[in-house]
Amino acid sequence: MNIALSPRAADYRNRLLAFFDRHIYPNEKLYATQVNTGARWKTIPLIEELKGKAAAEGLWNLFMPEAPFGPGLTNLEYAPLCEVMGRVPWAPEVFNCNAPDTGNMEVLARYGTKDQQERWLWPLLRGEIRSCFAMTEPAVASSDATNIESAIVRDGDEYVINGRKWWSTGAGDPRCAIAIFMGKTDPTAAKHKQQSMILVPFDTPGVKVERMLNVFGYDEAPHGHAEVSYTNVRVPAGDMLLGEGRGFEIAQGRLGPGRIHHCMRSIGLAERALEFMCRRVRERVAFGKPIAQQGTIRADIADSRMEIDQARLLVMHAARVMDEAGNKAARAEIAMIKVVVPNMALRVLDRAMQAHGAAGMCEDFPLASGWALLRTLRLADGPDEVHQEAIAKLELKKYDPPKA
Amino acid sequence: MNIALSPRAADYRNRLLAFFDRHIYPNEKLYATQVNTGARWKTIPLIEELKGKAAAEGLWNLFMPEAPFGPGLTNLEYAPLCEVMGRVPWAPEVFNCNAPDTGNMEVLARYGTKDQQERWLWPLLRGEIRSCFAMTEPAVASSDATNIESAIVRDGDEYVINGRKWWSTGAGDPRCAIAIFMGKTDPTAAKHKQQSMILVPFDTPGVKVERMLNVFGYDEAPHGHAEVSYTNVRVPAGDMLLGEGRGFEIAQGRLGPGRIHHCMRSIGLAERALEFMCRRVRERVAFGKPIAQQGTIRADIADSRMEIDQARLLVMHAARVMDEAGNKAARAEIAMIKVVVPNMALRVLDRAMQAHGAAGMCEDFPLASGWALLRTLRLADGPDEVHQEAIAKLELKKYDPPKA
Amino acid sequence: MNIALSPRAADYRNRLLAFFDRHIYPNEKLYATQVNTGARWKTIPLIEELKGKAAAEGLWNLFMPEAPFGPGLTNLEYAPLCEVMGRVPWAPEVFNCNAPDTGNMEVLARYGTKDQQERWLWPLLRGEIRSCFAMTEPAVASSDATNIESAIVRDGDEYVINGRKWWSTGAGDPRCAIAIFMGKTDPTAAKHKQQSMILVPFDTPGVKVERMLNVFGYDEAPHGHAEVSYTNVRVPAGDMLLGEGRGFEIAQGRLGPGRIHHCMRSIGLAERALEFMCRRVRERVAFGKPIAQQGTIRADIADSRMEIDQARLLVMHAARVMDEAGNKAARAEIAMIKVVVPNMALRVLDRAMQAHGAAGMCEDFPLASGWALLRTLRLADGPDEVHQEAIAKLELKKYDPPKA
Amino acid sequence: MNIALSPRAADYRNRLLAFFDRHIYPNEKLYATQVNTGARWKTIPLIEELKGKAAAEGLWNLFMPEAPFGPGLTNLEYAPLCEVMGRVPWAPEVFNCNAPDTGNMEVLARYGTKDQQERWLWPLLRGEIRSCFAMTEPAVASSDATNIESAIVRDGDEYVINGRKWWSTGAGDPRCAIAIFMGKTDPTAAKHKQQSMILVPFDTPGVKVERMLNVFGYDEAPHGHAEVSYTNVRVPAGDMLLGEGRGFEIAQGRLGPGRIHHCMRSIGLAERALEFMCRRVRERVAFGKPIAQQGTIRADIADSRMEIDQARLLVMHAARVMDEAGNKAARAEIAMIKVVVPNMALRVLDRAMQAHGAAGMCEDFPLASGWALLRTLRLADGPDEVHQEAIAKLELKKYDPPKA
Repeated sequence: MNIALSPRAADYRNRLLAFFDRHIYPNEKLYATQVNTGARWKTIPLIEELKGKAAAEGLWNLFMPEAPFGPGLTNLEYAPLCEVMGRVPWAPEVFNCNAPDTGNMEVLARYGTKDQQERWLWPLLRGEIRSCFAMTEPAVASSDATNIESAIVRDGDEYVINGRKWWSTGAGDPRCAIAIFMGKTDPTAAKHKQQSMILVPFDTPGVKVERMLNVFGYDEAPHGHAEVSYTNVRVPAGDMLLGEGRGFEIAQGRLGPGRIHHCMRSIGLAERALEFMCRRVRERVAFGKPIAQQGTIRADIADSRMEIDQARLLVMHAARVMDEAGNKAARAEIAMIKVVVPNMALRVLDRAMQAHGAAGMCEDFPLASGWALLRTLRLADGPDEVHQEAIAKLELKKYDPPKA
Repeated sequence: MNIALSPRAADYRNRLLAFFDRHIYPNEKLYATQVNTGARWKTIPLIEELKGKAAAEGLWNLFMPEAPFGPGLTNLEYAPLCEVMGRVPWAPEVFNCNAPDTGNMEVLARYGTKDQQERWLWPLLRGEIRSCFAMTEPAVASSDATNIESAIVRDGDEYVINGRKWWSTGAGDPRCAIAIFMGKTDPTAAKHKQQSMILVPFDTPGVKVERMLNVFGYDEAPHGHAEVSYTNVRVPAGDMLLGEGRGFEIAQGRLGPGRIHHCMRSIGLAERALEFMCRRVRERVAFGKPIAQQGTIRADIADSRMEIDQARLLVMHAARVMDEAGNKAARAEIAMIKVVVPNMALRVLDRAMQAHGAAGMCEDFPLASGWALLRTLRLADGPDEVHQEAIAKLELKKYDPPKA
Repeated sequence: MNIALSPRAADYRNRLLAFFDRHIYPNEKLYATQVNTGARWKTIPLIEELKGKAAAEGLWNLFMPEAPFGPGLTNLEYAPLCEVMGRVPWAPEVFNCNAPDTGNMEVLARYGTKDQQERWLWPLLRGEIRSCFAMTEPAVASSDATNIESAIVRDGDEYVINGRKWWSTGAGDPRCAIAIFMGKTDPTAAKHKQQSMILVPFDTPGVKVERMLNVFGYDEAPHGHAEVSYTNVRVPAGDMLLGEGRGFEIAQGRLGPGRIHHCMRSIGLAERALEFMCRRVRERVAFGKPIAQQGTIRADIADSRMEIDQARLLVMHAARVMDEAGNKAARAEIAMIKVVVPNMALRVLDRAMQAHGAAGMCEDFPLASGWALLRTLRLADGPDEVHQEAIAKLELKKYDPPKA
Repeated sequence: MNIALSPRAADYRNRLLAFFDRHIYPNEKLYATQVNTGARWKTIPLIEELKGKAAAEGLWNLFMPEAPFGPGLTNLEYAPLCEVMGRVPWAPEVFNCNAPDTGNMEVLARYGTKDQQERWLWPLLRGEIRSCFAMTEPAVASSDATNIESAIVRDGDEYVINGRKWWSTGAGDPRCAIAIFMGKTDPTAAKHKQQSMILVPFDTPGVKVERMLNVFGYDEAPHGHAEVSYTNVRVPAGDMLLGEGRGFEIAQGRLGPGRIHHCMRSIGLAERALEFMCRRVRERVAFGKPIAQQGTIRADIADSRMEIDQARLLVMHAARVMDEAGNKAARAEIAMIKVVVPNMALRVLDRAMQAHGAAGMCEDFPLASGWALLRTLRLADGPDEVHQEAIAKLELKKYDPPKA
């Protein structure tokens, strides 16, 4: 599928592809070895080494649209780059383009004060520290963000934070230095004004990682997903982002780009799974002929190609609308890719696993782990059902009677 | 969904939409009345009247890419126009853009001799006569076109044609004047050189419409689909198209644009069904609230929107590849839209029917008839399975070992 | 699939199968000819002739559980017989087992007075007259039966009926003599006590067939589906069924058996479609081998077999629960088959159509017409969505806290 | 869903359910703690303790149809018991009814010599040792068992075994004492006579566990799945099962009951997931109401109920056919449940996970681990595609022309 890219995007893409051929694909085994040897939650030497190379080649912070913090690519330009990075789940960090740091950096770039940016944004942009996003809570259905119950209470020059969060991705990394924390500053305010976001340095007393969570048996080290308790955590009032009651505003701003990045990466994962599938079925023989000659396998391959291409076009289209009309105007498109892409990629990976036989279930191929990762995306940043609802609402609204 | 159109395409589109508001939608009932009153196979006065208006406004032969026969729109420019026309199944003829005449006109424009063009192409372009395409045969699986068995035998200055065809769309129109007929001139030649295409004036002795076929319970008058026998039909040798043994070459050239037109029209039909659905569920009340508030209906609406938008983007993409790289280079994309679009549109119409209750099954809404029409498109120009196979073949080929 | 039948059911089944071999299958063409020749709404001589034979062989009124009106088969015994009858859509009437007469006869047998039975039930049991069921209304979402608006107003010794009904199946038959009519006697009563059912002789002044409706282009003559207006229709008070306000009670009693009959017939239709499919793909050759050797076609056949067998077992299970615990206790099972079976059969017929190519769309095979018939069953007696809702409600209820 | 059980089966079922209430459900946390504390591949004290209790209550070896080795339940009687056991993945071992030991015990009971039974069957029946089944090989597509390449070569009074197997379930248990090993004794024999099965004591020199495999991210300790190399492994000639060249015969005999057990357990897992789902959605509130009131969730619940019930009935039916007509006669039914049940259960668990939000992905609920386990069942004992093929073959065969 050839989609016309801007010359700048095409150049980046070629360089990224070359970097993958030289440094990513040949190191997949080494990466697994380093992760699975020694301590569980640690810095991976390979990543640090490759970060140096990527930065030196200018393949760094490509996601960041805001000057002076990054190269200022449009969403449409970044999309195909993000897809390439997504072909290997650990690769985005090599280019400092990994979630949730990208989303957190965007929040700091857009809404942070100069001081907040000095302390947190620039170290993140240099890849020195890592961050997490503390939103989801175990006690409530967080698909409805108004349910979030953690308390952020002003006490003199400080805020006092109490609550329990989970699925704080990246909190397993020993360099995780900062959490963007969402909670209620005013439970009596209007529904979408109760919530605020505040910066919580991760070494503040009262912050405690209770456990690291599994995703289908994977702990997803070295970044992982943590359950974290916050008990009488005190931070200076200056760590508030944007102002009390503006948590939803920030969340909306953060989620658009975050979602499209997830989607592009997922397409990369799906493309790679289809590639593995095609190679595998050409090689393996059953019942007297290569599996590639079985009609149902061929239908699976064709369906995968059709579904990937459609989903990619929808993502590119969403990127264009975001670029041209803004994230808010693109909310139907963003909701659509959020539903379409993970479901598509799950189907493609499932077919690829099936074609691999038992091998597809285990660590010998990046299929089962990729599937697990994708499965969480039908829930992260809102379950499918919430986005379908948003799409339906916008569609039905088209038929509202004209206002007087 | 806003897709950037060329200024020319945007202008045509606006004029088409206005034409629909003025002349098509308000006449849907009248059209049905004229079809269902009096003789079954006849010219419809409304169509003739509107053809005059459309031609006068320059909304005429928009499909035709080849100067001097038409305006020379690219596929990408024509796609959104074709979608609009497809919103009402009988509308394309108003603009002389209806199948199978469009495909037949393209064949004559590309492969016809000057003389053939004088006799058949220009009258078709003026909307004076109609045509049919005589390919599918009842006796063999025509999904494999090499199965086609009709005989075209040279006898002096003439060819003698014998065979039986069916699903000759348009043959019910009393003005159907010409068939493009496919058959074997040399059963001993290489597989793809056995077939030829020849022009058969429909009033030639030996051509007999055996019966008009139903699609589900619709006869699809006034054009219809005929089973036609050809018994010792003699035509001058000059009616051969391009040369003996070149039938497959023409078929390939004909099918690309034909398929994309079908697909664009189907998207128009799907959009309109979704529109009907949204309007209906806002109005009807069950169990104490408008049906529009039922979660499963909302999910149906959201899914329909996601599927339509993806399919449209794939068609636009295919159009672009056809424009930029040619029909042959676009064969994967054409195969993909041929599978994706009718299946998508069938799902959308099925959901719309379900939301309409029993009303959706009958003639009160254009849903059941639209569904039936779309269902045939999973078979016309090759069943889904043949196209899936073609896509799989192209995908697997990417992994062929490099040639020495 | 061999399911143990009672000796009585097995004997009936064998005799039915023999009757089909002798009298039904060999007459399918003749039936079509008689329907399509001459007047549209009429008695079909073949049916009358075969009714005589069937009655003489004791294959008559098999559906009727209540002595002395019928043989008193259980639902479990009748199910496999009903499946056989369903293999050919016009066959059930031959055995006086066709909808909606069966349901109407059951209502009269259960709830009718001696007098009502004399006038209407016995002639129906003898196959002398036909009947219709007047419930669905065009103006309201009839999936919620409390929406039904027709008025039944007491006036002295009479009731005066006003309203408009549609989808009154069987009303096209010139012998249709009686309608069971549902409407409101008391709009101020409790929600489920407002409705009553009353007998309306079809020749009563004020009853007018406004039009016959199409289902996917089929008028389904000779029985058909009518839109019928009732204008100041007066019937004696004695024509009320069971008593004012008891319409819902009757509707519930009527629907259980009616639904299971539809389901069993649909399974017969699906079985026959699979049979057609297997025969066709063995015969037709494409790309050098019988279509039966294509992997995707084989997967379609396997999936069809799996889906049919599961659906049949669910219907047999529902029948058993109805027999053992009553229709009310079986309401989850009845709701389940109502959703499962038509959807299953639609998939099976759709695959069979696809395997037939264009032939599957037209009147040469009973596939397209069968599909259309089945499609209405996703709406008749309540749309899928209403039954899913009922199933979910019963399932969730299992987790109600125990009552104090 | 109430299905009539034999009094004996009903009694066992009640006792099993009581055992679960007393000993299984209350110990789920303890089991997890014991597995995740200390060494990875070990005996779990809780299991040993509960085995004692279960044996004392006569809930032991219920799977074993052959006297004197077990209680001699029919498949139909065992099915509902097996379903109960399957509700908790580690529970079957408590009753000595866990795969692959059950299948291996059946092989020994049917095909073992007195001596083989003394050494291996009786200790297995007493739950003292564990076993594995060494069939699948990493180097070939084992879906086609004729591909299996390991060598079993006669050398005097011994056989010498060489090969590499993987997915040897249970090989992680330190008590795994015996492998049933499949390999080729005669590569020149007729295709289905090349293979033999032989007993390999797991402590024989040359047997080496190369690694334990992950399923998704689960190692499924304490039993696990091993990759095992066999290098010049020598066993006495008397360890051959049944005779050279009879491997396929044994495999066929083993797979029928093994498959139905897997299916019944999977239904238990699906039922429990639906139970978790219903409880969860009643409790969690989003957008102002319990999630249980969302229409799409309710449709998911209804669909799950319909799919579970159909699948269970198909399994019961297959069990009955096996009991009445033998495993060979039931091969269509066995193939069908092998495809239907895991796919059904995967859908049900996936919906349950979705309804749990992020919690459904992790170890807090048995959903993600259950899903992973079920996913392997679409491949274990043959991938879906192989079984679909078998079903299609049998279906098409019904239309073979009668033999002369």
